[in-house]
Amino acid sequence: MNMKDGRIRVVIESVSPEIDFGRFPAKRIIGDTMSVEADIFTDGHDAISASLLYKTEGEDAWREMPMTPLVNDRWQASFPLEQLGRYRYTVTGWVDHFKSWRKAIEKRVTARQVVSVDMLIGASMVEEAANHASGSAKSTLKKLAASLRSSSVKDDEKLAMVLEPDMVSLVDKHSVRLFTVTYPRELVVVVDPVCARFSAWYEMFPRSASSLPGRHGTFRDCERLLPRVAAMGFDILYFPPIHPIGVTHRKGRNNRPSSNPEDAGSPWAIGSSEGGHKSVNPMLGTPEDYKRLIAKARDKGIEIAFDLAYNCTPDHPYVKEHPEWFRKRPDGTIQYAENPPKKYEDIIPFDFETEHWSELWEELKSIVLFWIDQGIRIFRVDNPHTKPFPFWEWLITEVKRDYPEVIFLSEAFTRPKVMNRLTKLGFSQTYTYFAWRNTKWELTQYFTELGRPGVRDHLRPNLWPNTPDILTEYLQFGGRPAFIARLILAATLGASYGIYGAPYELMEARPREPGSEEYVDSEKYEIKHWNLERPDSLREFITRVNRIRRENPALHDDVSLRFHDVDNDSLLCYSKHTPDWSNIIVTIVNLDPHHTQAGWVTIPLETMSLDAAQPFQVHDLLSDARYLWHGPRNYVELNPNVVPAHVLRIRRRIRSERDFDYFM
Amino acid sequence: MNMKDGRIRVVIESVSPEIDFGRFPAKRIIGDTMSVEADIFTDGHDAISASLLYKTEGEDAWREMPMTPLVNDRWQASFPLEQLGRYRYTVTGWVDHFKSWRKAIEKRVTARQVVSVDMLIGASMVEEAANHASGSAKSTLKKLAASLRSSSVKDDEKLAMVLEPDMVSLVDKHSVRLFTVTYPRELVVVVDPVCARFSAWYEMFPRSASSLPGRHGTFRDCERLLPRVAAMGFDILYFPPIHPIGVTHRKGRNNRPSSNPEDAGSPWAIGSSEGGHKSVNPMLGTPEDYKRLIAKARDKGIEIAFDLAYNCTPDHPYVKEHPEWFRKRPDGTIQYAENPPKKYEDIIPFDFETEHWSELWEELKSIVLFWIDQGIRIFRVDNPHTKPFPFWEWLITEVKRDYPEVIFLSEAFTRPKVMNRLTKLGFSQTYTYFAWRNTKWELTQYFTELGRPGVRDHLRPNLWPNTPDILTEYLQFGGRPAFIARLILAATLGASYGIYGAPYELMEARPREPGSEEYVDSEKYEIKHWNLERPDSLREFITRVNRIRRENPALHDDVSLRFHDVDNDSLLCYSKHTPDWSNIIVTIVNLDPHHTQAGWVTIPLETMSLDAAQPFQVHDLLSDARYLWHGPRNYVELNPNVVPAHVLRIRRRIRSERDFDYFM
Repeated sequence: MNMKDGRIRVVIESVSPEIDFGRFPAKRIIGDTMSVEADIFTDGHDAISASLLYKTEGEDAWREMPMTPLVNDRWQASFPLEQLGRYRYTVTGWVDHFKSWRKAIEKRVTARQVVSVDMLIGASMVEEAANHASGSAKSTLKKLAASLRSSSVKDDEKLAMVLEPDMVSLVDKHSVRLFTVTYPRELVVVVDPVCARFSAWYEMFPRSASSLPGRHGTFRDCERLLPRVAAMGFDILYFPPIHPIGVTHRKGRNNRPSSNPEDAGSPWAIGSSEGGHKSVNPMLGTPEDYKRLIAKARDKGIEIAFDLAYNCTPDHPYVKEHPEWFRKRPDGTIQYAENPPKKYEDIIPFDFETEHWSELWEELKSIVLFWIDQGIRIFRVDNPHTKPFPFWEWLITEVKRDYPEVIFLSEAFTRPKVMNRLTKLGFSQTYTYFAWRNTKWELTQYFTELGRPGVRDHLRPNLWPNTPDILTEYLQFGGRPAFIARLILAATLGASYGIYGAPYELMEARPREPGSEEYVDSEKYEIKHWNLERPDSLREFITRVNRIRRENPALHDDVSLRFHDVDNDSLLCYSKHTPDWSNIIVTIVNLDPHHTQAGWVTIPLETMSLDAAQPFQVHDLLSDARYLWHGPRNYVELNPNVVPAHVLRIRRRIRSERDFDYFM
Repeated sequence: MNMKDGRIRVVIESVSPEIDFGRFPAKRIIGDTMSVEADIFTDGHDAISASLLYKTEGEDAWREMPMTPLVNDRWQASFPLEQLGRYRYTVTGWVDHFKSWRKAIEKRVTARQVVSVDMLIGASMVEEAANHASGSAKSTLKKLAASLRSSSVKDDEKLAMVLEPDMVSLVDKHSVRLFTVTYPRELVVVVDPVCARFSAWYEMFPRSASSLPGRHGTFRDCERLLPRVAAMGFDILYFPPIHPIGVTHRKGRNNRPSSNPEDAGSPWAIGSSEGGHKSVNPMLGTPEDYKRLIAKARDKGIEIAFDLAYNCTPDHPYVKEHPEWFRKRPDGTIQYAENPPKKYEDIIPFDFETEHWSELWEELKSIVLFWIDQGIRIFRVDNPHTKPFPFWEWLITEVKRDYPEVIFLSEAFTRPKVMNRLTKLGFSQTYTYFAWRNTKWELTQYFTELGRPGVRDHLRPNLWPNTPDILTEYLQFGGRPAFIARLILAATLGASYGIYGAPYELMEARPREPGSEEYVDSEKYEIKHWNLERPDSLREFITRVNRIRRENPALHDDVSLRFHDVDNDSLLCYSKHTPDWSNIIVTIVNLDPHHTQAGWVTIPLETMSLDAAQPFQVHDLLSDARYLWHGPRNYVELNPNVVPAHVLRIRRRIRSERDFDYFM
C-alpha cells in the first residue's frame, strides 16, 4: 500500500468507461461527448471535490473539467471528442475544506448558533487563497477575509458574501489542493470516424458484376453498379479479396476438391504467379482501375471495403521468397491448413511462431499500408481469430496512429471470449452471432449481453443476416417474410449492418444440401449472373429501410437499445432513442414468418419522457400508417405476408382543439 | 503493448477471485479449498494447457496445480488453504503442441489417413522431451520416439503407446514450455480463522452484569454469566469500551446534554484522569480481572470481542500529552466532534491530517497490540468510516502480519461504497443494513447484492437485528413474532450474526420517543438490571436456533444462499447447502408479524441434486415436525403467533417397501 502520505484520504474507484482496468481503450466516434463516471468518496463528513482530466495523446498538459456528484458517491463529467485518434483521461479528487466550511457555516447561521470562531476559520482559508492570488483577485479575497473577521458585519451578510457563486469560484481557483489523489491509471479512448458505429454494408463479388452472363466481371463493371448501391442507401461496398487466385489444389464449383481449367476458384485462395497480397487479379482490371473505382465510389458517398485475408496458396510468391514464414514438416513439405481429419491443401497459413515473426509482422503491415495508399480506409479482416492477438493489437495500433480514420471489421465467427478479445484489442467492428439468433429469447439475451457497460464500450456489432458462408435455416424455410424480418432486425437492432447483397435482394434460399448453410452453386467458387431487376426483388424495401435509418438518429447508435414486453413470444419489441429523446423509434417484429401474430405491447412511457396520461401518435415508417396510442399498453397485429414489422416513430403530441386559434 | 516476443499467443483474463484487479486480497478461512478460475484461450485451433501457481507469502517457489477446462474457455483449479495468513496465486498458460498433435493424430488414425509424416512430427516432440529428461525417463522417451519413427509398428499401436496416460504425463513433464504467459498480477488471499466467517455474537454491557440492582457490574460478574452465554450457543461475547469514561460534558440519561454525578456516562466517551485507551475503567475491575475473564471465556469456547473506538473525551490523557494530534481552532480551543448544527462536545476526534500523522498511526496501532497482549483476538471497530482508509489498510495489514488469527469487525453504518471499501481494505466482517431490510423485496435485493462474486469475496456480513443504537420500528411494533422472525433471518441468512443480548431476549421494544430508534432509558447512558430469568424470554428459542446453526454446516457459509419463489409476498424462502449437497437447509419466514400467511413454495429440485420424481422429507428443525413433500411446489402456512418460520432440513430419501429385507 501507498505510505507516501497517509493523509491522502480520498478514494477514486470504478471509473467508467474503463476496460480491463485500463488494459484496453474504450471506443467512441468523433463528435461524441465523452462522459466519465467514478465512485469518489472519503472518510467522515468532509466535503470533497473532483475533476476529470483529459488531453489528446499528443498534448502534454491536462485539461480539467469539474465533476458533479450524481447519487451514491458516483461523480460525473464530460469532455468533447473533437478529433480522430486517441484521448487520455483520468480523475483527480481532494478533500475540500472550504466547501465543508461553507456547508457547515450555512447550517450554523440558519440555526442561529454563535459562529464567531467559525467565521475566523473561514477567514483563514480565504486569506490562504489570497496569498496564492495576484492582482484584483488578491485584493477581492483580502477584502472578503477582512469582512469575515470584522465584528461590525452581521453573520447573515458574511454568509451572503461568502456564498456568492463568483466568490466561491474565486476562492476555489486560488486555494491550494492538499492531499489530492489521482486515479492510478491514465485511460484511453479511441475516437473513430462515424462509419465505425453507423454503417450499412453491401457485399458483392466484382467478378459477377458483368452485364453479360458468363463474362468475368471487372472493376469497370462495378463502377456501373455504384449509383444503384448508393440509391439503395448503402455506404460501404465490400468486395471479397481482389488478388490473383492460386491454381494448385484450386477448388471446383460447390467446393469440389478438384477444379476444371474454367473454374474461377475462391477469391480467398490468394496468390499465384501473377502476384500476391499487393497485386490485383488481372481478370478484374488493373491496379489503376481499382484506384479509380475507390475514388468514384467515394464521390457517391460509398467507401470500398478491402478484404484482408492473411493466407496464401502454395503458388503465392511469399512461399518461395520467404519459406521461413511457413511451417515445414519433417518430409520437407510445407504445412497446409487443416482441421483434422479435414485438409485444406489449397491454403497454407503463416507460421506466427517462426523466429522471423517480426519481419513477417512488418510485411503484413506493409500490405495494409499499401492499400491505404491506394485509397482504402476500411478493412474487413478475414478470420482474425486464427492469427495471434498481439499481432492484431500491434498492427491496428500502428496503422491507426498514422491513419486514425481507418477502421477494421473483425470476421471472427468463433467463441465469445475470442471475439471479445479482438474488439478489446482494437477491431472497430465485429461480425456477431446475429445470423443464428432467431427467437425472442435468443435475440433479447444476446443484445442485452452486447449492450452491457464494458462490452458496449469496445464491441461494436455489425449484423449480417446472410454472408457467402451463411444461409441460415430461418432464411431457407421462411420465405419472403423471413428475409424482410431479418433485414429489419439487422438494420434496427444494429447501427451497423450488412447484407451479402444480390442473393438477399433476390431471396436466394437454396442450400447446397439439406442441413447445410452453404449456398448451392455458391458464388465463392464460381462467377454468377444475378438478375437484379427481377420485379419481386427486395430492392425497394431495402431502400426504404436504409432511408429510415438515415433519417432517424435514434438508429445511429446501439447504446439506447431497450427491449419491451409483448404478451406474445412471436413478437419482439424494442426501442432506440437519441440522448435528448427528440427521436424515438419503437420496432416490433413478427418473428414467425408463417402466421399473423398479435399482442399487447408495453412501452415504459414514464422513462421516455412521455406523458402517460396523453394520447400520442406512432408513425409506421415502413407503411406510412399512423396510429393513435394511449397509455403504456397498446395492441399490435402483424401479418407476415403484408409486412412482418412496424418501425414506429413516436410523435409526441397530438393536436387537439386547443391548437386552433379560436380556442385561445 | 508487450512487444518482447510476439509469439506469446495465450491470453489469460478475468481471473477470479480478483478484487479491483488485484488491488485488494480475497478472503477465505482456514480449511477452505481455494478455487481459482480464469478465461484462457489462444488464437486458432492449437491446444493449450494452464497451471494455477500458488504459495504462502513467505515461500519463494511457486507450487503448481494443473488447470482443467470448464466451458466457454473458462479454466479452473484449486489449492488447499492450510495455514492462517496470506497466500499468493497467479495463473500461467502455454500453447501445448504435444497436446494438439495427440488430438490430431487420434482423429487421423481413426479416419485411416496416411500419417507417416505426422508420426515423425510426434517423434521429434518426444525426442525433444527426452533431451530434457534423464535416467529411465530419458530411455523410455527415446524408445517411444523410435517406435513412432519405426515403419514396422502399426499406426494403431503407435497411437496406443503415445496416448497411454503415464506416457502423456512423462512427455508433458519433460517438454519445454515455449512462449508461456503468466497473468500480470500476483493475487492474494487472506486466510482467516473460522470465526471470521461463522460466528454468533452476544453484546452486553459489563457494567450491567451485577446480580444486585443498582450496583456497577464488574468483570467478575461477567465470569458468572459465561456459562449462560455458552449454553445459549454464542461464541463471541462483545463488550462496549471498557476504558475510563470522561467527565467533561458527560451525557446524562437518555443522552441529556448534562449529567448528574451519579450518571455512568457513555462507554464510548473514552478517557479520563484514570487513563485512556490502554486502561480499564476501575469500576469494572483491574486489568488482571479482564485478562482472567478473557481466559475463562476461552475455556468455555467464547472469545471476548474488544471495542476499538478511536475517539477521546476532553479529559483523555492524549489531549494534554499530544495536542498535535487534535485540530486547534483560531481561539485556541480544540475542535470537538460535530455534524452541524449538532455538536458533540464530549468527544474530540483525532485530526488525521496532522503533520504528525505517522506518530498518531503508530500510537493507535500500539493500542491494538496492547490488547492483543492481554489476550484479545477479536476487535469490533467503532465508526471506522470516520477515519482514513489508508490508516485502516495499514493497521490491519500490520497487525495481521504478526497475528493472522486476529479479526476486525467494521461498525460502519454508512453509505454502501464506503462500507465496501472498508471490507476490501481488510476488515474481516462488517455490520450491514440488515436491521432496516424488512420486506421480501428488500431482503432479496440486499442479500443478492452482498452475494455477488467480487463482493462476497471480501465482504462478510454480520447481521444484527438490534444494537444499543438500533431498535427498529419493525421490532417496536411487531411484538414477539417480530423478534423471533428477525432472529431467524439473522441467524440463517448470515453465517455471522449477533444480538444486543438482554434487550433481545426480553423483547425490549420501547423507543425513547415515537419515531426514534433509540431505546428509552438506553443502556448507553446508564447501568441496567435485566431480569434474564423472565419466563417469557426468548432464551430457549435462541438456544435452539444456535444449536441448529452449529449442527448444520449449510449455515456456516453465505456463498450458497439462494432465494426461492413463493406466491405470497409476506413469505420469504431461501436455502443454503454444503458444497456436496449433503446438508440442505430451506428457511421460510413469515415477514408479517400480525397474520397467518400461506402460499406455495417452489424449490428448484433439479439444481439441488434431488430427484423431482421422488417424494422427500423436510424436517422442521424449529418445531421438530416432519413433512412429506413431492415435486418442486409445496404448500406452507405460518402462524406468527406459533412460530413465524420453518427451518427445514431436507432429508433426501423416503423409505419405501423396497427398503425391507423381504423385498430384495
